[in-house]
Amino acid sequence: MNNSWLDAVKWNSEGLIPAIAQEAGTGKVLTLAWVNREALAATAKQGQAVYWSRSRRKLWRKGEESGHVQLVMDIRLDCDHDAVLFLVEQKGGIACHTGRERCFYQHLQGDQWVTDDPVLKSEREIYGTK
Amino acid sequence: MNNSWLDAVKWNSEGLIPAIAQEAGTGKVLTLAWVNREALAATAKQGQAVYWSRSRRKLWRKGEESGHVQLVMDIRLDCDHDAVLFLVEQKGGIACHTGRERCFYQHLQGDQWVTDDPVLKSEREIYGTK
Repeated sequence: MNNSWLDAVKWNSEGLIPAIAQEAGTGKVLTLAWVNREALAATAKQGQAVYWSRSRRKLWRKGEESGHVQLVMDIRLDCDHDAVLFLVEQKGGIACHTGRERCFYQHLQGDQWVTDDPVLKSEREIYGTK
Repeated sequence: MNNSWLDAVKWNSEGLIPAIAQEAGTGKVLTLAWVNREALAATAKQGQAVYWSRSRRKLWRKGEESGHVQLVMDIRLDCDHDAVLFLVEQKGGIACHTGRERCFYQHLQGDQWVTDDPVLKSEREIYGTK
């Protein structure tokens, strides 16, 4: 496979770009995560979202622990070549590690962040007792 | 106004976080840009997207030259407090400086980025001759 499409991406000084995951069916923006070259190549090859975990400093196959994988239907690139958008099917209907549908579950109301999305499954249910 | 909601944001080492703009009506993801504390405060106060331009190193009132302002209906924060999502009404129906509806106008087809969104207005029409 020709990898020139990966060369076209403008990676930042850490070799990363942000990746937005949007649910194809509902249009909801689920997550913002990060990819490096290897993660983006793996996402394209496998058709499942693979990110770079900045905290754990390793590839993060989304759903590897929770089963909440993201099947990737489309990968889009922006005009500056420094952000990607994944159109996904979210398995289990839960993208967030808190057990919510999406990570963007807080919104600004006046001068306060208010949570307006429910927890669908507890972290214990998702990950088991740790 | 109490600014503790701004203190809750986990700014990166440059004092920035990514801001996704999504069109409220269609659900389309239009742009990924960046905000610093001042830009996010201005966005909330004015109800119009204000970003931080990393290339020009100054506040960037979206649409200040083109007229393509983004009215912000909702500001959402993610679980890690390091990304925001703006639900917007895109004036003029054009978010991208290339004259396209959105910045994510290229998608991966095999091993190539293919442009599948049309230019609605030329840059000359938008910005005048420079």
